[in-house]
Amino acid sequence: MRTEAGRPGRPGRPRSERAEQAILDATVHAIGDCGVDGVRCEDVAARAGVGKATLYRRWACKEDLLIAAFASLAAPLPQPRGESVREDLIAMAEVLAEGAMDPRYARQFALLHGEGERYPRLLARYKEQVIEPRRELIRSVLRRGVATGELRPDTDVEIAMLALTGAVMARGKGDTTPAAPGFAARVVDALLRGIAAR
Amino acid sequence: MRTEAGRPGRPGRPRSERAEQAILDATVHAIGDCGVDGVRCEDVAARAGVGKATLYRRWACKEDLLIAAFASLAAPLPQPRGESVREDLIAMAEVLAEGAMDPRYARQFALLHGEGERYPRLLARYKEQVIEPRRELIRSVLRRGVATGELRPDTDVEIAMLALTGAVMARGKGDTTPAAPGFAARVVDALLRGIAAR
Repeated sequence: MRTEAGRPGRPGRPRSERAEQAILDATVHAIGDCGVDGVRCEDVAARAGVGKATLYRRWACKEDLLIAAFASLAAPLPQPRGESVREDLIAMAEVLAEGAMDPRYARQFALLHGEGERYPRLLARYKEQVIEPRRELIRSVLRRGVATGELRPDTDVEIAMLALTGAVMARGKGDTTPAAPGFAARVVDALLRGIAAR
Repeated sequence: MRTEAGRPGRPGRPRSERAEQAILDATVHAIGDCGVDGVRCEDVAARAGVGKATLYRRWACKEDLLIAAFASLAAPLPQPRGESVREDLIAMAEVLAEGAMDPRYARQFALLHGEGERYPRLLARYKEQVIEPRRELIRSVLRRGVATGELRPDTDVEIAMLALTGAVMARGKGDTTPAAPGFAARVVDALLRGIAAR
C-alpha cells in the first residue's frame, strides 16, 4: 500500500482535496466491483494511495464514505440566477439531463435503489443528504415563481418538481444517448404551458 | 428435482399456465438471489417444480426467460376507455404509481439498469418489449387528445409522456409509501393545466 507520506507532491489542488477525490473515486470503483457489501475501507485507501488514517479522518465510518461517494456522482445543480423562473428551471433541467446520461451515476443509483431494502439506513441518508437538497432547490425556484406571479398561484409545487425531474429521468430510462439540444427547454415549456386545449 | 409428470393435477388455471407462472416467479427469485449472471435454467426449473424441457419449450434461451420475468413484474396498463383523455391518463398513472411501489419491481428494474452496460442486448430487448409498448399506449392516448381537441394541437407528445411517467417514477425514488389518493390526478391535472400564470 502506498502511504500518504509516500505520495510525491503535485502542484494544483491542495493535497487534502486531491486525497479526498482519490478516495471518493476509489470508493465508486469499489462499489462497482464489489457491491455495497463488499467495499472495504482498507482496499479503498490502498487504491486511493492514502493511509487508512487519512480516510478515517474524513469519514468516520463506511456508511459515511458510501454516502459521500454516491453524492460525488451527482453533478451539483446550478444556483438559480433569480431573473426568470423559466431560465432557472431550464438550467437545472440541463444539468439533470446530463447527469442522467452518466453510466456511473445510473449504475450506482440503480445499485443503491436495487439494494435499498437491504440498506434502508443508507438509502434514507442518501435521500436526505443527496436527493432532498436538490429537490428543495427546484421547489424554491417554483415557490419564487408563485411569489413573483410568473407561476399560477395554485401551482402544485411538489408535482411540478416531480414532473420536471421525472421527465428527465424517464428519458434516460429509455435512451442513454445525450439529449438533443433544447430537450430541457421542451420539458420546462410543456410544464409551464400545459397540454390541455383552452 | 420434481418433474412435470410428477406434479399432482390441480384445479383452476390450466397446468401450462400454472407452470409458466411458477417458472417466471422462480426466475424473479433467482435474479434476486444470484443476479442476472447467476441465473441457471436448471435451478429455475427445479425451483418451479417443472422439467427443463417444459422451460425450454416456452423460452428457448436464458435471455428470453429473463425478459419474460422482468416483464411479469410490470403490471399491465389499463386499456384506454376512450371517453376522456384526462380519465384515461389518470387510470394509467394510477397503475404506474402502484407499480412503482412494488419493491420487487424496483429491485429488478434497478438491477437491470445497474447492470445494463454489462447486458446491453438484454436491456435493449427489455426496452423494446416491455417499456416501449407501455409508452406507446400512453402516447396513443395523448395523440387521441390532440385529434379530439381535448389537448393543444401543438402538444409535445413525447415530453408529455415522459413527464407523466417520470413524475410517478420520481415520487417512488424519494418515497416508497403508497401514493395518497388523488396523486395520479394531481400529476395529470398539473400537466394538463400547466403551471405558468396567464
